[in-house]
Amino acid sequence: MRMYDIIESKRDGHELSDAQIDFFVQGYTEGSIPDYQASALCMAIFYEGMSEHETARLTLDMAHSGDIVDLSVIPGVKVDKHSTGGVGDKTTLIVAPTVASLGVHVAKISGRGLGHTGGTLDKLESIPGLTTSMSREQFFDIVRTVGCAVVGQTDNLVPADKKLYALRDVTATVDSLPLIASSIMSKKIAAGSDKILLDVKCGSGAFMKTTDDAIALAREMVAIGEHVGRTTTALITNMDRPLGQCVGNALEVQEAACTLQGNGPDDLVAVCIELAANMLELAGKGSVEECRAMVQEQLSNGEALQKFAQMVKAQGGDEHYVLAPECFGHDTCSVELKASCDGWIHHMNTEQVGLASTALGGGRATKDDLIDPLAGIVLAKKTGEKVQKGEVLATLYAQNGAKLTEGKNELSGAYTIGSEKPVHEPLIYARVTRSGVEKLV
Amino acid sequence: MRMYDIIESKRDGHELSDAQIDFFVQGYTEGSIPDYQASALCMAIFYEGMSEHETARLTLDMAHSGDIVDLSVIPGVKVDKHSTGGVGDKTTLIVAPTVASLGVHVAKISGRGLGHTGGTLDKLESIPGLTTSMSREQFFDIVRTVGCAVVGQTDNLVPADKKLYALRDVTATVDSLPLIASSIMSKKIAAGSDKILLDVKCGSGAFMKTTDDAIALAREMVAIGEHVGRTTTALITNMDRPLGQCVGNALEVQEAACTLQGNGPDDLVAVCIELAANMLELAGKGSVEECRAMVQEQLSNGEALQKFAQMVKAQGGDEHYVLAPECFGHDTCSVELKASCDGWIHHMNTEQVGLASTALGGGRATKDDLIDPLAGIVLAKKTGEKVQKGEVLATLYAQNGAKLTEGKNELSGAYTIGSEKPVHEPLIYARVTRSGVEKLV
Repeated sequence: MRMYDIIESKRDGHELSDAQIDFFVQGYTEGSIPDYQASALCMAIFYEGMSEHETARLTLDMAHSGDIVDLSVIPGVKVDKHSTGGVGDKTTLIVAPTVASLGVHVAKISGRGLGHTGGTLDKLESIPGLTTSMSREQFFDIVRTVGCAVVGQTDNLVPADKKLYALRDVTATVDSLPLIASSIMSKKIAAGSDKILLDVKCGSGAFMKTTDDAIALAREMVAIGEHVGRTTTALITNMDRPLGQCVGNALEVQEAACTLQGNGPDDLVAVCIELAANMLELAGKGSVEECRAMVQEQLSNGEALQKFAQMVKAQGGDEHYVLAPECFGHDTCSVELKASCDGWIHHMNTEQVGLASTALGGGRATKDDLIDPLAGIVLAKKTGEKVQKGEVLATLYAQNGAKLTEGKNELSGAYTIGSEKPVHEPLIYARVTRSGVEKLV
Repeated sequence: MRMYDIIESKRDGHELSDAQIDFFVQGYTEGSIPDYQASALCMAIFYEGMSEHETARLTLDMAHSGDIVDLSVIPGVKVDKHSTGGVGDKTTLIVAPTVASLGVHVAKISGRGLGHTGGTLDKLESIPGLTTSMSREQFFDIVRTVGCAVVGQTDNLVPADKKLYALRDVTATVDSLPLIASSIMSKKIAAGSDKILLDVKCGSGAFMKTTDDAIALAREMVAIGEHVGRTTTALITNMDRPLGQCVGNALEVQEAACTLQGNGPDDLVAVCIELAANMLELAGKGSVEECRAMVQEQLSNGEALQKFAQMVKAQGGDEHYVLAPECFGHDTCSVELKASCDGWIHHMNTEQVGLASTALGGGRATKDDLIDPLAGIVLAKKTGEKVQKGEVLATLYAQNGAKLTEGKNELSGAYTIGSEKPVHEPLIYARVTRSGVEKLV
């Protein structure tokens, strides 16, 4: 078999055979297929697409290119949750303990933030003492005893995807649905859970800008899940504005803790309830509607918060920061952004909000940047709200004035204020399961 | 400027700017742009194409990536001739001296054979003593004094094309009209002639299989020539059967010499007259019709042959082999291929005929193979001719029986014999100039 023929075959619109896909993934991972052939193939896939079968095969091959986490040592159904990334997205911190408090195990392998999106690991590590690096055995122990844990990815998880994604990132071949879908799903499959809930974000702060694109990606991923025997549900959720009021690591942990205490902002609460309910439904706990009620109960009776505190403690963190989030301080420097005119907030360029947080020190522009856990933004007003000239739109926190200025400049460009009340945008657009697409608006 | 943005722009169907194309060619040639980005761009070009302007810019940039041959030291109009490659194509050996005998200089930089196609350098070097490696000064001297010379390419001619072609060859991105056209034309432009005649072959022995594809390629190349001020004419000629009777290096030199003596096979003579007449027309010697008559005169009065002998002698070769081609011997081993049934030859898979010659030792399967100058095939019957069972179709020559067997096996599969007289296929399909396409059938 020759890589040349595989490229040519895809280029000419043919479906690749299992053997061809295996040959590519194995050869590329071990280095016998050079980058320049892999990038040509990725570009051909960008144009020609891949069938459901091809995508599933590619996904499985990538999943098996390194270690596979074997969660069978943990009893019961294990449900994973993945977000395609957004701004202010602290849902994992809320839904994982909520679901675990209802007896469903969540063994989550998570990532760090880059660019305008934050990462769950960075957020958790703003809690003093907490670690997300541990042995497989420690990880399993916490999941078994507490019910949930969140750790970082080891080096040998899906090496094929690591290598291929790095290549796609510099060859303009990221924007291909089957390649995006297989990249995400290969990591989920290697992570070992039985069921997968996907939160596919769409809007100005997300990779997918339109609901149609987000639904298309969700369908690809749900289909892969079906193909490989991991039942997958996807929710298409709004990332055309930040989720909740807080953007930044410690700020988001505080907001998550408040939400687990029953005091979360409406949009964050609503999305978390849907995500948690769908995870429970996947685990066989009842209909989505029944599960929704169970989730609401756990958020109001304090059990979800207790579970979060247990997880934090088990991972070495100081649980008081979760039980009394006011323990977190603020950066010494802060500044307010005020409205420059009267009107309604028509739109927030949410990527810009994320970049503002990065500029403040709350995120990474490059992989090697250090994060300031306390930096970030508290939004007082969001899309759809009425403002008066001079009213505070947001408070920004950073370690020094230079960063504050940079962050404020970025954030001030993110708002579009108009004179008429804008149309209300829904929070959750659709739910995609193996049965099809259920539009929720 | 970033290569990423150039790939993305082409991928999204935009026209690249001059600056972007310059950045790519310079960066790729000097090595600052890696192969994996260049191959992704080539695949995007495969799908999106290039405008006339983009193609011309790419061509000029590649031409200027290394040395440019400055033929201004040689007086008069210099006309180049290029064939896209075929089987039995010895036309350069005939038309270069014919045109030179009429006072038009031909300073030809030629290539070697690979795969099923032969190379002019290999053919010429079958003449004892002849060399195609010489200094630029020696080359110019011969062109000035004799009127024509044929030499090999130096290492620093169009390095961008060398590198890019090698990459395209292993990434399934060869089959792109703008990339093929710019590759050919960059070499012609760097070779320094004022006018260019292209012989675009089409059919089973050529890279272009259909006349439409060949015309499309010709149009691209003629347009590039116009864009860069090198008037270019293209003839679309038949390579659905070998040209002439002989395939192999010394065999083709003999056939060329016979043709220059006025004893060539009809098809070869006809194609050579058209090629030479169009070269003369480009040089301003008169209308194509007038030039055709001049060429016929030179072929019958012996002046073209004398010019060939002079060129051979000037390049160190023994001119007796040209003046008395029977000086060439044959390989000691030969075998006849006979018709297995009565009928008409409907088709010859011409690539297979070329591969048979390669198997006999007359060509190279890989760049490092050595050539047997005496090996090859003399075709007794070609497409359109009637044959009887047992009649000789061809005689094959090689150094040993094993090669003969291999060559015969390959050649025997090349013929399709049918019971009815086939439709006559023309020799020359079309002529493409800056004024447009003139169909000749």
